[in-house]
Amino acid sequence: MTSPHLTHRHRKLADLSKKQGLDALAINPGPSLPYLTGLHFHMSERPVVVFFSADHPPIIVLPELEMLKMKNLPYEIEAFPYGEDPASWGQVFQEAMRAGGLEQSRIGIEPLALRVLELGFLEAAAPEAQFVSGEAAVVELRMRKDQGEVAHMRKAAQIAQAALHATLPMVKPGVTERQIASELALQLLRHGSQSPIAFAPIVSSGPNSANPHAFPSDRELVPGDLLVIDWGASVEGYLSDITRTFAIGEVAPEFELIAEIVEKANAAGRAAVKPGVPAGQVDDAARKVITEAGYGQYFTHRTGHGLGLEGHEEPYIRSGSQLPLEVGMSFTIEPGIYLPGRGGVRIEDDVVVAADGLESLTDLPRRLQVIEG
Amino acid sequence: MTSPHLTHRHRKLADLSKKQGLDALAINPGPSLPYLTGLHFHMSERPVVVFFSADHPPIIVLPELEMLKMKNLPYEIEAFPYGEDPASWGQVFQEAMRAGGLEQSRIGIEPLALRVLELGFLEAAAPEAQFVSGEAAVVELRMRKDQGEVAHMRKAAQIAQAALHATLPMVKPGVTERQIASELALQLLRHGSQSPIAFAPIVSSGPNSANPHAFPSDRELVPGDLLVIDWGASVEGYLSDITRTFAIGEVAPEFELIAEIVEKANAAGRAAVKPGVPAGQVDDAARKVITEAGYGQYFTHRTGHGLGLEGHEEPYIRSGSQLPLEVGMSFTIEPGIYLPGRGGVRIEDDVVVAADGLESLTDLPRRLQVIEG
Repeated sequence: MTSPHLTHRHRKLADLSKKQGLDALAINPGPSLPYLTGLHFHMSERPVVVFFSADHPPIIVLPELEMLKMKNLPYEIEAFPYGEDPASWGQVFQEAMRAGGLEQSRIGIEPLALRVLELGFLEAAAPEAQFVSGEAAVVELRMRKDQGEVAHMRKAAQIAQAALHATLPMVKPGVTERQIASELALQLLRHGSQSPIAFAPIVSSGPNSANPHAFPSDRELVPGDLLVIDWGASVEGYLSDITRTFAIGEVAPEFELIAEIVEKANAAGRAAVKPGVPAGQVDDAARKVITEAGYGQYFTHRTGHGLGLEGHEEPYIRSGSQLPLEVGMSFTIEPGIYLPGRGGVRIEDDVVVAADGLESLTDLPRRLQVIEG
Repeated sequence: MTSPHLTHRHRKLADLSKKQGLDALAINPGPSLPYLTGLHFHMSERPVVVFFSADHPPIIVLPELEMLKMKNLPYEIEAFPYGEDPASWGQVFQEAMRAGGLEQSRIGIEPLALRVLELGFLEAAAPEAQFVSGEAAVVELRMRKDQGEVAHMRKAAQIAQAALHATLPMVKPGVTERQIASELALQLLRHGSQSPIAFAPIVSSGPNSANPHAFPSDRELVPGDLLVIDWGASVEGYLSDITRTFAIGEVAPEFELIAEIVEKANAAGRAAVKPGVPAGQVDDAARKVITEAGYGQYFTHRTGHGLGLEGHEEPYIRSGSQLPLEVGMSFTIEPGIYLPGRGGVRIEDDVVVAADGLESLTDLPRRLQVIEG
């Protein structure tokens, strides 16, 4: 990450914060922190918080043992390190917030990243400050991907697709969901995904495939199963997130039918994407296909979610969302039909809004692919 | 996970909550949730919270699309599912808390797991309830591992050690930290670690090794480097977490010296472990060796941390901790010396307190191993 990038982002964040009526933003480890600082921290029992405001360089509270990360940063930062005794941390937070003139400020936080741990230190350090959601400013900052970001996402999609190709030969009756998930994770790394990969692959077979968020089990594949694989790679922190569904040998005619319907719904969702269209219309377009085919009640989730540094982020592609799509927004299109106790189908692509519609970062065949025993 | 295990844990949690003056505990996705419920959820923008209290079966608020996970649970649970429109979620939280009689309760939460997102829903649903840290109850519940848990941790240690063996042949000058980290992650899966593995391996070389929490970079190994590798596997959610340090060819005499000192400090730390000893004494024992050798200021972190379902948990092995060690407590012993700008050494083992001292789950050679070009 070059310095102009980061300082540009700091300035943009300051502008967006001001528009939201915020004096500062307090960011803890999570995707926004490397996006803004180029710094990586594990979320742990040792709190790390960076304060961004318009009139002061970033201020960071961090463990002393992380201080080497402050060397040679391509921008100014004021560091407040603390030692290993938790009893001493409150004092350091107080000094940091005083140095930033934040004792009585209106400070934005990220509700999906900040924990009660950090909130407690912030509130104790500045009892007169107000802590409110700064999500809107951060979303606005991160939601439109630039070309460098899209290039990482494109690569993450290509790696994921190659990893699936390399995994499919071991997929056959008798193999367990967990074995497939492990091999796929391994192939993701082999093909160039960063570790950690985007997320633990979902591999769900037979009745398990009717559970959209199943965790891989020791169930062995048997002929007649539907098999849902949902996986992704990570490149410079940017993720891919793909789903394809397979048939193990011959499957029930209704399974073939729902696979066709979901394929059409996926195509309808992708066809609806272009700048200016409200996100909800993309959901409506995909859902209409499934509802008209009589399976509406079995499409139990929204059509998609934003994708980037997080597996789920804005824009969410759900019915009723008025958010107008803009060039550079990236998200999934992933309609599904889930027949409880029997099986499910989901087909998920990663797309980026382009001037003339979209670029699909994923292009694996979407048709139900039959795997013979 | 068998049902008696889980219902026993629910009862124990209810007792511990009462001792802490809590009416209930609100647990969100994180290690405590599968420990108590056998259920796995991703932490996401869709909040999931389970309420545990003495006089009511567990109550769960969750997305509708996760409802299949409620089938065939080996204990009673009351589910409050919500749909895809976030505007409707508050109402569902309110109904759930009313059903549990929690509107005016004193409710424990986990400050390191609960986010401002969930806290916001809880506070809005029950404005007269009090939300306080329930950490002490959860720590007390989880800190002493039973034999089944230790068996998982033992296996996680063995897998990690085998994965390192399989990785070492590719470690040589010219290879980058990232390449080693990817290969090691891959070998962890190949040798039977669950995905996700315990954590993204730390592979830090040369000056980078002086940063205890470095993230792998594109730096290529060169002769004269110290190389720190810190990695772990996951088995049924239980983690291993090991560090060993290597010399790339001949290294500076001072590097050999600090490696010897750290090896002795690690041994002294392990020798200090037995039931009844305060955790702080283990830190003191390891630190004394390093301080007396004149390198105290370069051992910048505590000697270890608890290990189990989390990479860092209680008991923390830091100076001053009066917590008496008990049979079944599991933690790391990981002294280090870090010479800024030059290089670092850390040697980390995973141990479980036993009646007569400890069981070390890890037994890879601790001596500085020289890797020839």
